Amino acid sequence: MPDNAPPQTSALRVLTLPEPLKLDCGETLDHVEIAYESWGEPNANRSNVILICHALTGDQFAASPNPLTGRPAWWPRVIGPGLAIDTDRYHVIATNVLGGCMGTTGPASNAPDGKPYGTRFPVITIGDMVRAQRAFIAALGIDSLFSVIGGSMGGMQALEWAAQAPGQVFTSVPIATSARHSAQNIAFYEVGRQAIMADPDWCEGNYLAQGKRPSRGLAIARMAAHITYVSEGALKRKFDRGLQDREKTSFSFDADFQVESYLRYQGHSFVDRFDANSYLYVTRAMDYFDLSSRSEGRLADVFRDTPVRFCVFSFSSDWHYPPEANREITRALIAAGAEVSYLDIQSDKGHDAFLLKEPIYERALAGFLSSSAELRGI
Amino acid sequence: MPDNAPPQTSALRVLTLPEPLKLDCGETLDHVEIAYESWGEPNANRSNVILICHALTGDQFAASPNPLTGRPAWWPRVIGPGLAIDTDRYHVIATNVLGGCMGTTGPASNAPDGKPYGTRFPVITIGDMVRAQRAFIAALGIDSLFSVIGGSMGGMQALEWAAQAPGQVFTSVPIATSARHSAQNIAFYEVGRQAIMADPDWCEGNYLAQGKRPSRGLAIARMAAHITYVSEGALKRKFDRGLQDREKTSFSFDADFQVESYLRYQGHSFVDRFDANSYLYVTRAMDYFDLSSRSEGRLADVFRDTPVRFCVFSFSSDWHYPPEANREITRALIAAGAEVSYLDIQSDKGHDAFLLKEPIYERALAGFLSSSAELRGI
Repeated sequence: MPDNAPPQTSALRVLTLPEPLKLDCGETLDHVEIAYESWGEPNANRSNVILICHALTGDQFAASPNPLTGRPAWWPRVIGPGLAIDTDRYHVIATNVLGGCMGTTGPASNAPDGKPYGTRFPVITIGDMVRAQRAFIAALGIDSLFSVIGGSMGGMQALEWAAQAPGQVFTSVPIATSARHSAQNIAFYEVGRQAIMADPDWCEGNYLAQGKRPSRGLAIARMAAHITYVSEGALKRKFDRGLQDREKTSFSFDADFQVESYLRYQGHSFVDRFDANSYLYVTRAMDYFDLSSRSEGRLADVFRDTPVRFCVFSFSSDWHYPPEANREITRALIAAGAEVSYLDIQSDKGHDAFLLKEPIYERALAGFLSSSAELRGI
Repeated sequence: MPDNAPPQTSALRVLTLPEPLKLDCGETLDHVEIAYESWGEPNANRSNVILICHALTGDQFAASPNPLTGRPAWWPRVIGPGLAIDTDRYHVIATNVLGGCMGTTGPASNAPDGKPYGTRFPVITIGDMVRAQRAFIAALGIDSLFSVIGGSMGGMQALEWAAQAPGQVFTSVPIATSARHSAQNIAFYEVGRQAIMADPDWCEGNYLAQGKRPSRGLAIARMAAHITYVSEGALKRKFDRGLQDREKTSFSFDADFQVESYLRYQGHSFVDRFDANSYLYVTRAMDYFDLSSRSEGRLADVFRDTPVRFCVFSFSSDWHYPPEANREITRALIAAGAEVSYLDIQSDKGHDAFLLKEPIYERALAGFLSSSAELRGI
């Protein structure tokens, strides 16, 4: 397989949506494939289905290894038998988002003309991602979800589900997220997009057809974003000013410092598993996300009298989607009359804490799901 | 002038150091030119000299317009007749740093072989910058400074002066700075360096000889760094999610948001006035800066019984060199037995606050200098 080819899809479970998908931009995608993975079994009335929504660079392999990249599951700490998202009790499904690059239709997919979309792919929104998931769930014969759960961009989808289809979601768990991308969020992702588009190998978005890949630009984008996922305290704890495989600074532009070596690795390893145009589209969807804009800036009105039960999590040292962004969600939900629990977890691990070992968070998530399941008779 | 030529130096005041300059890396620069500017007059015994040290992308034009770029003075709020750094009372000098690109010898200068150094230029340190300033001051016939003042990287130089030559500095004013670049600081500058070096027009550092400039990479580097100079609150206050010259999002990768347009402007305008290799060298000097490493990690020992009077400033919303980094300096100075005042200024303007309108800061700086001047009989 040439290294510029889109991921081979034979090892992936893929469902083709039965109907065309209308998008917020006004365009329609006639052929949409959704790649997914699942764990645990549905119960008789399918009332125990949990949808896991992944973050920007995640995929559907939340609880089992990715057969294409060989990478381990990204959320093994919370999904599995006896874990918070207990696969002995729940039927857990994860899809790759619309616009993604792990089997779901996105800019690296072929357009109806048989050539990769590239930047001919329509600009999508978080709302479109969720509409695609709803069509997917319906195609599986599932009427409603017991829970929709996600961190970061996954949390946006958890909120969007509750906003779009309150009757189809029993609980929603937005984690380390925001209902409204901030100017600083937009700024960081704009730097990443500019880095990709500045790479001559981006070829105005047409790199797949030309046998190229903007790997340098994509690596820079990843490096810049990665800094925002880690707290200043965690960087100090892990690396401080430690040198990489040397006793003294080299008086050169080599990766003298461990933190430089770590960032370079983050950038270079990312380009093997992610499509640069997907990065553009998915970050754009996040930038466009502002739930409150649907009710003239009043987020509470979006959720007025919602039947959905929410559990919102934030992490104290997360400066990408800081606690305050999650408190805004919580306050709006309370004002809307929703049932909402909110936990701010003390952690020095920054935004990435939602993927890492944080026992209080894991126990609280387990408790929320378990008590909600009892209410629903699961 | 072709757009890849180094700045024309005829409009600049330049002094050639009389002796070769030994560097921390072990190399020696035989020919070093220092570009400078000055305001106000020296008094009879030259006891009223203040040295202004500029930040990463600054230059010697602190208090008068840059004749080459046409840009206004960068510190007109504090330097001038009757201002905090009163040019009726003090003789104020600013130099372009070693490794810079506004007339002082740096990677864009010609090496002894008549061709631009490029990455043949030796990697320099903040210590080297200050050694060059000390040689420059001596060449002007000035024995000691009444004060050395700078923000950000300029603050590092203010600290370095006090460490290197405590007998030659009466007061030192480090502003919004750090005695030790943090892992996060290094990470951000590493992203910038990687963006420059990833640009094919960087030509392995040899772009001047090849008639090219890595403008795209340098713009990305500037954009990434610029985000760290502004607080999240200031970005929200100035831009929030405001759209640029449009009513609705465009469903494209245009600069829909004002913050995107602003960042792109910051990037593109920067490349006309700054040399990409200088950016590599000067950020590297900052990353290497760790005053405490000279005393086995004990910063206080570097300043033990120093006669220098210090005034340290930080700004509450600065997350590039946060208040805590400046408090560390202050605590070390107190432990060293130094006379030190410390002010943390409440401001939502982030790191850039040191260049902006902050009346309490300006008054405090004026007061510190004025009372110190009385002590010195100026």
